[in-house]
Amino acid sequence: MQGFLYPRTPSGRAALVPPPPWHYSGDLLTVEYRTDPAKVAALLPAPLNPAPEDPGAVAVIWADWQSCSDSRAELLDPVRSQYKECFVVVRCEFGGRIYSRCVYIWVDKDFAIARGLHQGYPKKLGSIHQTRPHPHGPAPRIEAGARFGATLAAADRRLAEAVVELVEPAQRNGFVNGHPMAHHRWLPGIERGTPDALAQLIASGAASGEAGQPWRGTAELRLFEAPTEELADLTVEEPIGAYYCQVGATWDGGSVLAERV
Amino acid sequence: MQGFLYPRTPSGRAALVPPPPWHYSGDLLTVEYRTDPAKVAALLPAPLNPAPEDPGAVAVIWADWQSCSDSRAELLDPVRSQYKECFVVVRCEFGGRIYSRCVYIWVDKDFAIARGLHQGYPKKLGSIHQTRPHPHGPAPRIEAGARFGATLAAADRRLAEAVVELVEPAQRNGFVNGHPMAHHRWLPGIERGTPDALAQLIASGAASGEAGQPWRGTAELRLFEAPTEELADLTVEEPIGAYYCQVGATWDGGSVLAERV
Amino acid sequence: MQGFLYPRTPSGRAALVPPPPWHYSGDLLTVEYRTDPAKVAALLPAPLNPAPEDPGAVAVIWADWQSCSDSRAELLDPVRSQYKECFVVVRCEFGGRIYSRCVYIWVDKDFAIARGLHQGYPKKLGSIHQTRPHPHGPAPRIEAGARFGATLAAADRRLAEAVVELVEPAQRNGFVNGHPMAHHRWLPGIERGTPDALAQLIASGAASGEAGQPWRGTAELRLFEAPTEELADLTVEEPIGAYYCQVGATWDGGSVLAERV
Amino acid sequence: MQGFLYPRTPSGRAALVPPPPWHYSGDLLTVEYRTDPAKVAALLPAPLNPAPEDPGAVAVIWADWQSCSDSRAELLDPVRSQYKECFVVVRCEFGGRIYSRCVYIWVDKDFAIARGLHQGYPKKLGSIHQTRPHPHGPAPRIEAGARFGATLAAADRRLAEAVVELVEPAQRNGFVNGHPMAHHRWLPGIERGTPDALAQLIASGAASGEAGQPWRGTAELRLFEAPTEELADLTVEEPIGAYYCQVGATWDGGSVLAERV
Repeated sequence: MQGFLYPRTPSGRAALVPPPPWHYSGDLLTVEYRTDPAKVAALLPAPLNPAPEDPGAVAVIWADWQSCSDSRAELLDPVRSQYKECFVVVRCEFGGRIYSRCVYIWVDKDFAIARGLHQGYPKKLGSIHQTRPHPHGPAPRIEAGARFGATLAAADRRLAEAVVELVEPAQRNGFVNGHPMAHHRWLPGIERGTPDALAQLIASGAASGEAGQPWRGTAELRLFEAPTEELADLTVEEPIGAYYCQVGATWDGGSVLAERV
Repeated sequence: MQGFLYPRTPSGRAALVPPPPWHYSGDLLTVEYRTDPAKVAALLPAPLNPAPEDPGAVAVIWADWQSCSDSRAELLDPVRSQYKECFVVVRCEFGGRIYSRCVYIWVDKDFAIARGLHQGYPKKLGSIHQTRPHPHGPAPRIEAGARFGATLAAADRRLAEAVVELVEPAQRNGFVNGHPMAHHRWLPGIERGTPDALAQLIASGAASGEAGQPWRGTAELRLFEAPTEELADLTVEEPIGAYYCQVGATWDGGSVLAERV
Repeated sequence: MQGFLYPRTPSGRAALVPPPPWHYSGDLLTVEYRTDPAKVAALLPAPLNPAPEDPGAVAVIWADWQSCSDSRAELLDPVRSQYKECFVVVRCEFGGRIYSRCVYIWVDKDFAIARGLHQGYPKKLGSIHQTRPHPHGPAPRIEAGARFGATLAAADRRLAEAVVELVEPAQRNGFVNGHPMAHHRWLPGIERGTPDALAQLIASGAASGEAGQPWRGTAELRLFEAPTEELADLTVEEPIGAYYCQVGATWDGGSVLAERV
Repeated sequence: MQGFLYPRTPSGRAALVPPPPWHYSGDLLTVEYRTDPAKVAALLPAPLNPAPEDPGAVAVIWADWQSCSDSRAELLDPVRSQYKECFVVVRCEFGGRIYSRCVYIWVDKDFAIARGLHQGYPKKLGSIHQTRPHPHGPAPRIEAGARFGATLAAADRRLAEAVVELVEPAQRNGFVNGHPMAHHRWLPGIERGTPDALAQLIASGAASGEAGQPWRGTAELRLFEAPTEELADLTVEEPIGAYYCQVGATWDGGSVLAERV
């Protein structure tokens, strides 16, 4: 049977997502801040440890993507290529290395959920919007003073909103999401009360990538309560910075850090 | 860390879906037909075998659900409770028993995708609609001559549509979806070229349930081609029947039939 | 050129909505309360006056509809038939008669927006959900103690939510929405600074209808602020009641009460 | 009462759309072709006449917009700013002048429907996608050989899809949509059998605008049948060309060409 992910069939054509490598073009809007380090530590299951430096650092990142498999067919049927996401990243330590880790993430397409299953991103569906730069008319250029809005909602409730104002070109696009990702891949046992059927700690990152000139800016960020979300618990205690960057990347698998975790 | 499914947190409140048992109220519209048995057999991975009797039987089922966990909180915030699905079921044999097996399924909410991950349903997102009975006005009553429409689309393409006309009360709600489900739970290895990290064959079915009076009817069913779907390959060679039934059910886990499959 | 509403073509087939009569089957969940009568009066443009009795009464109504034209074709392609709405009704007086008037309304389909243009309902798009009764499983029956949730969101923000608990059968389904509707139909002049090109006060109501047994209950209602909404200004000062009712109705035009208003 | 469009309130804050001027930044993907001129003529109600030259020319245009009012507040809450549309334009003659005319259009937001009411665009809701250029990764740059896909669906059916391949910079962005628009604004009489309450022929165009370098290319265009659409009747008899262009524009009202039409 063929098919990277379900459903598997003799041809594999119906699979929810084709096999990696997966290629991405996108715009990233990043807001970094410090919360209480204990709140970050509480989101790190064993065997992960808090990052030794700046352990309360959080990045909330909006991304507006076009993605495809090696065939690139998705790019010409863009309902299968375009998606938006908002994700929350912290850092952690394992085996003497620093990793980034996505603790919450919302996307707006099923193929993105499917990739997240494989990569260990805990994806939910959401409604995500971010201002796009444009060379004409009222939308912002990428320049000092340009302002970008970004919002996240899920289950008909707004969960987060940000306004980022660009200040100047920067050396890098923040630091919280700058490491390989350390993610758990969990699936509960099918029988009540049994252990997880899968419980892996895996690492992955871009196999290759390129980035345009990052811009540094200032941000207002607001997080809102919802009955089935815990994002607002990661309260903004101290702003760090905000960034805008356009990137291209390819993802092509990862490696297992630990089993039965 | 708490949380039946991701994201896992100290409280578990943010988990995409609470732990089973899961409770359901819904309306089922079922169309059964025969396709070429070889097409069904081709969708049965090892160690499953074709059903010995009527091996080409297929059921396409639309369902309009309200679901909840034990807290029943979802029922009062219905964006978290209501969803629709269309799924395709065949039968198979394993270890001397007959099982039903869902080979394709589309739903319209993320919590339904999450449950499918656990239960082995190969869920994609779709747009699903079915006529609802109503006691007043132009919508149909549940009675002879009542007509119900049902449609499925995904990625902005219509994939299936049916019209079912009720004829008379029936003894049962079809037979193709009448067995415990035999489903694979697969997750690819994170490293390119490695075997699946999880590859289980599991069985599950309703822990308890009740059904209203099923109705038997006739159906027109049309299946449409799409670049990333194989549903239309299950061509209608011979109609069997169509059914309408309202049900309540509780699902509370399953059992492992085989590992490394 | 044929076509009740745009686009008009030789056949009329592409029109956004077929001509009346329009037929409806639906479930209504109504919450009635009193706000400051001055807030209601402020929403009544000339030549309307406040209702002489109980001038601060407001009804917030959720409705889950299946609708169709005389051909009834929409019922079998239910994406063209089913829609949900949440609307806010007050009462007013004109020419010695009492009218109901919809001051805010959100729907989730374009054909419903189109009908609203004709009928003078000020429709926006929203995301609307309400618990449906069901004979099996966890969803409520229509009986004492049954609880129904209802929510409204627009532009990714929750605007209203209610929980209604049924108490007993009732004589009527509330009183605020019980009169013919008095609505303005406005379209601005195309040239900047010119008067409205259309400014009619019209009256309409169901041409015929039937209702099931209404139930009376109690409600919790919460209204939320949003930058482009004024619903939350209609603060709940005193609850009146809540109702559940299933109805069928036909709408077939209205009459002009006043021009150039 | 304030409010450019409904609902009108003392503050005008809840109005579905603020008053013009409306400002736009967007990407246009245009496919021009010739159909049977009689099919175009059949879509031109009195007092419009077919264009004397190339009367069968049709443009199908996809647009990916960010729009705002003078406050520009919508740009920072992009769910209220961003929308996509697909529209079909022909040419016509009135009073010795050539006009463009939109005969079909689909958008994905309610504020865009509202503007269309005012401007005479016959807007329905649809699901619209088009490939966006990007400086990094697999998405196309704006250069020779770049390929852009575009799709349109409504009511869960795909209605149109195109692939445009860029060839070279061009002098202009096509010619079919290059004139002021001549649009009817119709609203039926509220009483059955009465004439339209509003039936204006209006003209409008951009009050100001700027455009980037247009690119010329080749296109494949496919149109699909649907029960409530007539787009596919405008069969492609002869390709003319295809274009990609980024634009900024401001719209600020129009003028009445004729009343009671």
